[in-house]
Amino acid sequence: MTATHLASSQLADAVGGSEPPADADALVAERAGRAREASRVLAATTRQDKDAALIAIGAALVANSSRIIEANAVDLRRGEENGTSASLLDRLRLDESRIAGLRGALEELAALPDPIGEVVRGQTLPNGLRLRQLRVPLGVVGVIYEARPNVTVDIAGIGLKSGNAVLLRGGSAAATTNGVLVEIIRESLTASGLPADAVQSVDDGGRAAAQSMMRAVGLIDLLVPRGGRSLIQEVVRSSRVPVVQTGEGNVHLYLDADADAARAVPIALNAKVQRPSVCNAAETLLVHAAAGETGAAVLTALFQAGVRLHADERAAALVPGVPVLPATEEDWATEYGDLDIAVRVVDSLEEALEHIRRYSTGHTEAIVTDSLASQRAFIRGVDSAAVIVNASTRFTDGGQLGLGAEVGISTQKMHARGPMGLTELTTTQWIVEGDGHVRS
Amino acid sequence: MTATHLASSQLADAVGGSEPPADADALVAERAGRAREASRVLAATTRQDKDAALIAIGAALVANSSRIIEANAVDLRRGEENGTSASLLDRLRLDESRIAGLRGALEELAALPDPIGEVVRGQTLPNGLRLRQLRVPLGVVGVIYEARPNVTVDIAGIGLKSGNAVLLRGGSAAATTNGVLVEIIRESLTASGLPADAVQSVDDGGRAAAQSMMRAVGLIDLLVPRGGRSLIQEVVRSSRVPVVQTGEGNVHLYLDADADAARAVPIALNAKVQRPSVCNAAETLLVHAAAGETGAAVLTALFQAGVRLHADERAAALVPGVPVLPATEEDWATEYGDLDIAVRVVDSLEEALEHIRRYSTGHTEAIVTDSLASQRAFIRGVDSAAVIVNASTRFTDGGQLGLGAEVGISTQKMHARGPMGLTELTTTQWIVEGDGHVRS
Repeated sequence: MTATHLASSQLADAVGGSEPPADADALVAERAGRAREASRVLAATTRQDKDAALIAIGAALVANSSRIIEANAVDLRRGEENGTSASLLDRLRLDESRIAGLRGALEELAALPDPIGEVVRGQTLPNGLRLRQLRVPLGVVGVIYEARPNVTVDIAGIGLKSGNAVLLRGGSAAATTNGVLVEIIRESLTASGLPADAVQSVDDGGRAAAQSMMRAVGLIDLLVPRGGRSLIQEVVRSSRVPVVQTGEGNVHLYLDADADAARAVPIALNAKVQRPSVCNAAETLLVHAAAGETGAAVLTALFQAGVRLHADERAAALVPGVPVLPATEEDWATEYGDLDIAVRVVDSLEEALEHIRRYSTGHTEAIVTDSLASQRAFIRGVDSAAVIVNASTRFTDGGQLGLGAEVGISTQKMHARGPMGLTELTTTQWIVEGDGHVRS
Repeated sequence: MTATHLASSQLADAVGGSEPPADADALVAERAGRAREASRVLAATTRQDKDAALIAIGAALVANSSRIIEANAVDLRRGEENGTSASLLDRLRLDESRIAGLRGALEELAALPDPIGEVVRGQTLPNGLRLRQLRVPLGVVGVIYEARPNVTVDIAGIGLKSGNAVLLRGGSAAATTNGVLVEIIRESLTASGLPADAVQSVDDGGRAAAQSMMRAVGLIDLLVPRGGRSLIQEVVRSSRVPVVQTGEGNVHLYLDADADAARAVPIALNAKVQRPSVCNAAETLLVHAAAGETGAAVLTALFQAGVRLHADERAAALVPGVPVLPATEEDWATEYGDLDIAVRVVDSLEEALEHIRRYSTGHTEAIVTDSLASQRAFIRGVDSAAVIVNASTRFTDGGQLGLGAEVGISTQKMHARGPMGLTELTTTQWIVEGDGHVRS
């Protein structure tokens, strides 16, 4: 899962606040140049060799568990000294079982088809020209991300499988762990006969390195910010390198007129409570006026699960015994990332769609209904990366949707939309073969 | 074919130079809002109805030929008075035969498959969740373009077929013609029962309207600049709306060691001379040292066709009797857009690839060879939108490659690469259907 919020101190840490010194520019340029060379080798590497390298990296991580855990202990100790919250420390922690999970993710990537070389379209034209539109790697992909060190391994793996070299800039909270992970990955690449420079960190460039990445036009093909809202906004606003905007999720769950409590309650609990900090957690509940009883059951269950309800007057009236906060305009637009939910009663599916169009960030919207007509109208009316029918919003996730790991969840329409897996790190190239053809 | 160079006066005309007044912002916002409404209708319109509308528009253009030609005469007269060159006037001119061509292009679009609703990927997951990744329209597409009025019809047609509403900002040189074309298209849309606001011009907003389009974040989903280098650079630099960079073409033609003159001469002539102003015309000729005889034949033929040769010393030595200009560093980087070509002798295919990587704008590169190994190395080594083997570079064109008309030729890697037809004006949406599924 991609986006959890950075504490503001982490944000400052991830992207810095001032102009980068020339040496960060030089460092990024130098590594991006080596990444470009490595990307040429990767682009021509067979699936067989890439998969073998992924499996070897997984084995190397497990074989070096104690080295990783020692490095991780340094980050954890520093985190504790800095008063980092228990939940952030937990996200930062790597143990034997989590390292085995990293290996498992790499093995899953190895099992997925290779996107590179896919013939996306092809035909022989009436004049005999032979056309193929081939899927090819982007080249050099930069990622600016937050503390969780498993992201380092996920992105290295997705990059390798999709034939891209990656430049990584992680948060300093995980710097020691990330440093060791990158070392192990690079050693393993070398042992597999692939260029180590396919995976490089620029963490030693300090805060300025993130700024330098954003200026590296022509050196970095795509920059993906992976983190909380402020980090993403800062990168989208500042970067001159192409960016895919990820992870901002003001996610809506709509209970249609016929929504059944037996279905709606577990979905709402899962969508809001299972992991409230992530981008695919629900932030607003819209209840059709005819589904008042189901709405009441859902609100009661959420309240009992510790969720603060920010309700409009009609929603509050559904649960007279439950304490609620009054919903304001700001609530409709807020991605809480916490155990809070905004609640509104609407008179029709159309009114729900209007609300969603106004406040959605284009990530995920879900409907609970048994009506085919409502399902169809909801799918048509929602302009978001994912539309979910009768399931939890938490399924908008590369792993859950069968893409393997993910680089992030795109909330934009250009290039990639929704979870970004292997295909989303590719572009295409037209190959035109003739026999002396000229245009008349 | 997309990009021909704007005279600098036309550039100033197309994008303006100063801040837009508030009323241009308001005009663009108001029309983009209506376009959004229209796009919702188009997104749900069946292929059958879209194709019927395309055919009806073609018929309406032919039926209104005299109205179009009268309007065109106004633009032509103004152009003559302003001293516009004969070639630009020719590009501006519409007559019965060209109007019939416009109709033909719309009918070709109608014959193409509908990209909307295509299931790009789909599966049922082990847990029973049903996934489909559907192709959907982008929504509202803005195009800022140059004088040729047929672009107005092409883009309206591609927009309609791909379910997108379009906002058009054409150059003032063709303003009267464009105005009448948009009127006829809108009348025809209404007669077909589709929203007229699917096709709107903002030409009446003056130069400021282009600037306003670039600021219309959230109102316009994609902005495509279609014209010469300065127009494109200005839009890429200034726009806060997502832009696809199009049309800059420093295109290379490489004659491999075994290149045969019988094949190389016609390809080089076609690539350079047929229409030197367009983006897929060749700008640099690279000749393998072992192909000196073929190189000499090609240079002689180009010279005889009126092409000015900007040659390095070794290339000049191939044609001792032919006057050449000395090639400078600037020549390698120049897209002449005219009867000029830079020529260099290289010692290997690898040296040609290095030259191309250094100076290419990522549009199109071609090789003339009979060697499978060279073909393979060239395709692998070139990082451009199109790689052409034994054919003219002029084939990088949406119409030629079977995409129907094109919005432009993308030279970037994100979102779309190469000629942008119907598919390139779409995005995708994940539809996830469950039966009360929650994530564990």
